[in-house]
Amino acid sequence: MIIEKINSPADMKELTLEELTALATEVRKGVLNRVMLHGGHVGPNLGFTEATVALHYVFDAPTDKIVYDVSHQSYPHKILTGRKDGFFDKSKMDAISGYSSPLESPEYDNFEIGHTSTSVALAAGLVKGRDILGGTENVIAVIGDGSLSGGEAFEGLDILGELGTNAIVVVNDNEMSIAENHGGLYKHLRELRESNGKSPQNYFRALGLDYIYLDEGNNVARLVETFQRVKGIDHPIVVHIHTEKGHGFQPAIDDKERWHWNFPFNEDGSPRNPHQRGEYMPAMLGQWLREEMKSNPKLVCLSAGVPVILGFDAETRKKVGAQHFDVGIAEEAAVAMASAMAKRGAHAVFTTHATFMQRTYDQLCQDLAVNGNPAVINVTGASVFGMNDFTHICFFDIPMLSHIPNLVYLAPTNYEEMIAMERWAIYQNRHSVAIRVPEYGAYHATEPVDTDYSELNKYKVMHQGNTVAIIAAGDFYAKGENVAKALQAEGIDATLINPRYLSGIDEELLDSLTPNHQLVVTIEDGSLDGGFGERVARFYGPSAMRTLCFGVKKQLYDRYDVNELLRENRLLDEQIVEDIKNIIAQ
Amino acid sequence: MIIEKINSPADMKELTLEELTALATEVRKGVLNRVMLHGGHVGPNLGFTEATVALHYVFDAPTDKIVYDVSHQSYPHKILTGRKDGFFDKSKMDAISGYSSPLESPEYDNFEIGHTSTSVALAAGLVKGRDILGGTENVIAVIGDGSLSGGEAFEGLDILGELGTNAIVVVNDNEMSIAENHGGLYKHLRELRESNGKSPQNYFRALGLDYIYLDEGNNVARLVETFQRVKGIDHPIVVHIHTEKGHGFQPAIDDKERWHWNFPFNEDGSPRNPHQRGEYMPAMLGQWLREEMKSNPKLVCLSAGVPVILGFDAETRKKVGAQHFDVGIAEEAAVAMASAMAKRGAHAVFTTHATFMQRTYDQLCQDLAVNGNPAVINVTGASVFGMNDFTHICFFDIPMLSHIPNLVYLAPTNYEEMIAMERWAIYQNRHSVAIRVPEYGAYHATEPVDTDYSELNKYKVMHQGNTVAIIAAGDFYAKGENVAKALQAEGIDATLINPRYLSGIDEELLDSLTPNHQLVVTIEDGSLDGGFGERVARFYGPSAMRTLCFGVKKQLYDRYDVNELLRENRLLDEQIVEDIKNIIAQ
Repeated sequence: MIIEKINSPADMKELTLEELTALATEVRKGVLNRVMLHGGHVGPNLGFTEATVALHYVFDAPTDKIVYDVSHQSYPHKILTGRKDGFFDKSKMDAISGYSSPLESPEYDNFEIGHTSTSVALAAGLVKGRDILGGTENVIAVIGDGSLSGGEAFEGLDILGELGTNAIVVVNDNEMSIAENHGGLYKHLRELRESNGKSPQNYFRALGLDYIYLDEGNNVARLVETFQRVKGIDHPIVVHIHTEKGHGFQPAIDDKERWHWNFPFNEDGSPRNPHQRGEYMPAMLGQWLREEMKSNPKLVCLSAGVPVILGFDAETRKKVGAQHFDVGIAEEAAVAMASAMAKRGAHAVFTTHATFMQRTYDQLCQDLAVNGNPAVINVTGASVFGMNDFTHICFFDIPMLSHIPNLVYLAPTNYEEMIAMERWAIYQNRHSVAIRVPEYGAYHATEPVDTDYSELNKYKVMHQGNTVAIIAAGDFYAKGENVAKALQAEGIDATLINPRYLSGIDEELLDSLTPNHQLVVTIEDGSLDGGFGERVARFYGPSAMRTLCFGVKKQLYDRYDVNELLRENRLLDEQIVEDIKNIIAQ
Repeated sequence: MIIEKINSPADMKELTLEELTALATEVRKGVLNRVMLHGGHVGPNLGFTEATVALHYVFDAPTDKIVYDVSHQSYPHKILTGRKDGFFDKSKMDAISGYSSPLESPEYDNFEIGHTSTSVALAAGLVKGRDILGGTENVIAVIGDGSLSGGEAFEGLDILGELGTNAIVVVNDNEMSIAENHGGLYKHLRELRESNGKSPQNYFRALGLDYIYLDEGNNVARLVETFQRVKGIDHPIVVHIHTEKGHGFQPAIDDKERWHWNFPFNEDGSPRNPHQRGEYMPAMLGQWLREEMKSNPKLVCLSAGVPVILGFDAETRKKVGAQHFDVGIAEEAAVAMASAMAKRGAHAVFTTHATFMQRTYDQLCQDLAVNGNPAVINVTGASVFGMNDFTHICFFDIPMLSHIPNLVYLAPTNYEEMIAMERWAIYQNRHSVAIRVPEYGAYHATEPVDTDYSELNKYKVMHQGNTVAIIAAGDFYAKGENVAKALQAEGIDATLINPRYLSGIDEELLDSLTPNHQLVVTIEDGSLDGGFGERVARFYGPSAMRTLCFGVKKQLYDRYDVNELLRENRLLDEQIVEDIKNIIAQ
């Protein structure tokens, strides 16, 4: 095996083209080995194996800087830059993340990257930094065709066109985003492919970049030749390469969408540990929305590159037709569109994970909430039980969304309440509403839920007790129930409250707790800093009422053990009970 | 005067081309009259007068929907849609805002708009809404060439290309952004202008839109003819018109950047009330940065379309050369670039107003803070004394920025401290740092300020007293001083604290207050919800310490009277004193 001798790109420099081609095959085996045993991004990594070998043969990392967009194609790079154990040795796979990470490889990974469409703007910064410091290295941004639909990618290209010095943008065109591509641009990319790059119409040239095309994007020899042509170039150039997503693994070639990312699987593509999730709230919400669409032709679900969150897979999308619309990886425009659709009288629902919703902060404020248009924004994954990669943490959503003026943020505690809130949000016409879709657990209501949420910030008392009041939000309401039950066993009859609204407090209800309570506890599945608990603490600040907020400390998190995280933040049921007892004993 | 008879676009339909041309001249007089007496956007409105007359003659608003990007060119539209009094009658000017506003005109203004690059995505939503509802109206987005550099505009165009039904994008190309344009795209727009739209290379066509060009963008007859060609079209088309910024007013033609927006002025262009601002902190910061650049060639200031915030006017930009870089209206890419420049070893400083910083939430989180690169982000305007238009409110920055993990947010209280913090932030290499540039007042230190801020979240006790502790942040530290002085006069020797850090609390110091204080007061120039005060309230929640937070209520604000706002939020010095006395008397 050639790969045995490759511990850094320097070890590749003396290889022949035949050896490089063989190396690519070995690298592909490493990628496949990891995703089969560990799960991860399958298709994009397989398709970019030859290009990565060629990049590291031609360019001189770490002096030359390579930036991988969204990191979905960074596994071959990891294998060639000293991290092959994470691919060939099962016991060492956990040590390697699925994303570009300087914490993991300070030399070869330039940025922590997990969000889309950022590589070109980051590369522009490396270019400007190099130029001001008088450096001479090559700066290379890798970006998939899917990522081109994000505004930040356009901004980066436009700026490179202005900077005018050495910069190489490798566009890895596998004709796919996570799902199929969306946007007028993609017809044009096809035009470029079909004309072998000769079309006089050229998006990249229009932005001031030079351009070359290579159709054989899985051919090492042609890739080497192509990269050698642009190495050391004195102006920005796009190297548009046509690759095959899933190259070398037939199941991933046959169904590119399903094989973008996968759980561990066998050689024939069958799942290794058939995934039994049971009831899962985002999927149930999607199901309900599709049922509702049948009787409401004005209802449209928008997604931004990840339609599968609510279960809009290829077949389902076909079935609902115009009532689902994927904007591409363009979250900003998705929020603007939802707002305008609602303005025009349609019922618009946009859904994405909290970590990607971060890309829409200004659109939520300006395009949506300032206008007060009745669009519905579903925020998914927002829980410590959600994705736990460094760049994909979703539990800072309450600080982000709940302080935006004129945006109502709701936290359902169970399935029936989620549907009631969604239904209300869709059919009312006064408020811009965001809904925190429960990520953890799938609880069901034990008593009828309210259908009207138009009186804002009305908390609901689920059990009236005394001494201690517990306000437990969203999917952590169940934790509040557990804590109340445990206190009951110790003779404390705690009041239990479902706040329902994350965007404001029920001052009247909080006031009413004063006579019979000495402690108000808040529990939320998210950040303490800027969380809903702090508002409660501020409200009682001038009074004698004690308050105690439970949530997660503000810091960076990466691939944590969720039980450890709960314990460290004193979020285990018994820890909460203990802390409450300590205070009321004072 | 023809304008006397025009109360809505319906009144224009019988006019001849000659009358329409005369009407445009009258509309221009209205625009000029308002900006001379009231101030406002001069150049863009003057340049778009003929086009607006033609739009309202050809299309049928309010049935046809026109969306004005950033609203810098919306005055002529206001004059023609029932709001001419706001332009011709001095006493009624205050009633009309400078921006597109459904609150002002529910029929003719489709959205509240004040941020750039949103019109096309909003129009895409109107298109999708229309199509799902079976409507037939025209949807028209107006966008300036400057706004095309923002990612959301690209996303909108790309989506329109996919939607494929009626949509008309009027690109108002006056060859200028607020300052000159930046980005490779602008060379291409020139190519389109110089080829009279015939260049085979075409950015808009590459995104799947049809395209026509009109060079005479200030000629009513040609505009009418052009718009008539596209009215009712069955697919998306760009109408690229070449206009003259400042058309009809020589000073605005001669110096387009200075005349983008102006304070009230006389007919010769001289200022009506020469503006004497005195010391202004953002300007002073810019001056210091330019001095520092001389001895530090690695220091680069980035701006995003508004270089003038730190005083980088045309002449200054020329002087500093490569040490200033304007990215166009592309705030997202600016943050990514700053992060990458810092990574590469340059000293990168990006500055913009808090309201525009909203556009970079995800980039601050992901491209910057997760990476921990030592770029410096200056946040300007963040004060109740800043801009007070609906869409330009800047005092929700603390909720936005202070809860982002790994981002240090500093609040200097005076000039010397601001410079010390800026210097530290530039020359340290461990943290991503944002600095809240004081907007209100220009105070000077009365004792030496610290030079090292690397021990995070260390508050500074400025006066050690007892009973009451006042923690007053940033430009409201002066208010804390006033309150402390007033309390002193009443026999209360309050402790006074400068928190300096908005992104975390000094637990040790807060603990140390417990023995000798019964009330801790926080004062901040911004939102109570998610503000720094709430963290202090949470900290003391479980204890007997009382807390009282002063700040501004979360809600939408528009053209408020700042003293009224302070009074309503009990932020006047005497109100704060009164509230404090009430609590400690309990």
